[in-house]
Amino acid sequence: MTRQAQTVITVRTPGQGLTDVTRPVAAFVARSGIATGLATLFIQHTSASLTVQENADPDVLADLNDFFRRVVPEGPALYRHAMEGPDDMPAHIRAALTQASLSIPVRDGALALGTWQGIYVFEHRARGHERRLVVHLAGN
Amino acid sequence: MTRQAQTVITVRTPGQGLTDVTRPVAAFVARSGIATGLATLFIQHTSASLTVQENADPDVLADLNDFFRRVVPEGPALYRHAMEGPDDMPAHIRAALTQASLSIPVRDGALALGTWQGIYVFEHRARGHERRLVVHLAGN
Amino acid sequence: MTRQAQTVITVRTPGQGLTDVTRPVAAFVARSGIATGLATLFIQHTSASLTVQENADPDVLADLNDFFRRVVPEGPALYRHAMEGPDDMPAHIRAALTQASLSIPVRDGALALGTWQGIYVFEHRARGHERRLVVHLAGN
Repeated sequence: MTRQAQTVITVRTPGQGLTDVTRPVAAFVARSGIATGLATLFIQHTSASLTVQENADPDVLADLNDFFRRVVPEGPALYRHAMEGPDDMPAHIRAALTQASLSIPVRDGALALGTWQGIYVFEHRARGHERRLVVHLAGN
Repeated sequence: MTRQAQTVITVRTPGQGLTDVTRPVAAFVARSGIATGLATLFIQHTSASLTVQENADPDVLADLNDFFRRVVPEGPALYRHAMEGPDDMPAHIRAALTQASLSIPVRDGALALGTWQGIYVFEHRARGHERRLVVHLAGN
Repeated sequence: MTRQAQTVITVRTPGQGLTDVTRPVAAFVARSGIATGLATLFIQHTSASLTVQENADPDVLADLNDFFRRVVPEGPALYRHAMEGPDDMPAHIRAALTQASLSIPVRDGALALGTWQGIYVFEHRARGHERRLVVHLAGN
């Protein structure tokens, strides 16, 4: 017999790059009292996204951001959609290449992340934004 | 105490590009009577995929499609797999770069999409196809 | 009234490329006795990932691996993160471009995969590794 819980986590990103959100998600799981289940995150934006990445060496996050800037460059000749600024269309593409939703099992009352895994909001716009994550938890 | 519902939605794509499927998914959620829960979509194909994208400016969808054609080009020298036509292997790669499954929380009886978010089937073959989505809904 | 089951599947990859894990996941679904539900896979690593791909022509898997090597090359000038070897940072990027989690509906007691779909662990490091998948199943 499973039950469920939901919350919205708001994150202020400082600009392009990755912001670790593991802690507030883990805290919500702990507060729920659910021992075994599934946590699903959904980001309510199309110019920021979600990814699971290594949380040990900050260079990994910088290299990851550089890669996305290189493979999806800005450039007025590349895109029709320009009215929200030169960084907007690349942001939508970078979001499509990563995830809008992520699901992580809950085991023994905690997120079943690997030793080096963290959950990140990936901001793809140049400036920081307030980003909303919906977290859905089901289990028992 | 959660319950669940499932359906299959069939979509006829007109060819390469994005087809909005938000409406039939939202209608299934509404009919289910589930107020709080999680909707998961799964596409039963490997040359079409799912993505959440901006639903305001159609140029975003055209630019997104162009990007995938540019970064995963057709070309007889690039791929071993050619027996299903020159557009088939690029279609498999574009599908791998996007999603086969997507999960969206249900809040207040509706999909918890952001203001500008739509759910899309991304057709990666040159010609249109009939594509099958399985929608799984759990909640109460 | 739904119930749930969880397991960990350990896969030994032979090195860079795709390893089919459909069979152990399908076996876990069959053993659970769940007829209708949702299976979610999560990989506890950031240099290997999950993808759904065609299981008919092995050339598709070889071409897919080649594409990821081409679009995310190794190269000492490209990345700051080098201390775990030249193949580590590209592996993290290739993982970000594919999936850490995948959800597949269960219908009639089996995974609702399309005719040609298989579930794969995508090893992005040069050498083989032991990779851990957590499988979460909910349904009735």
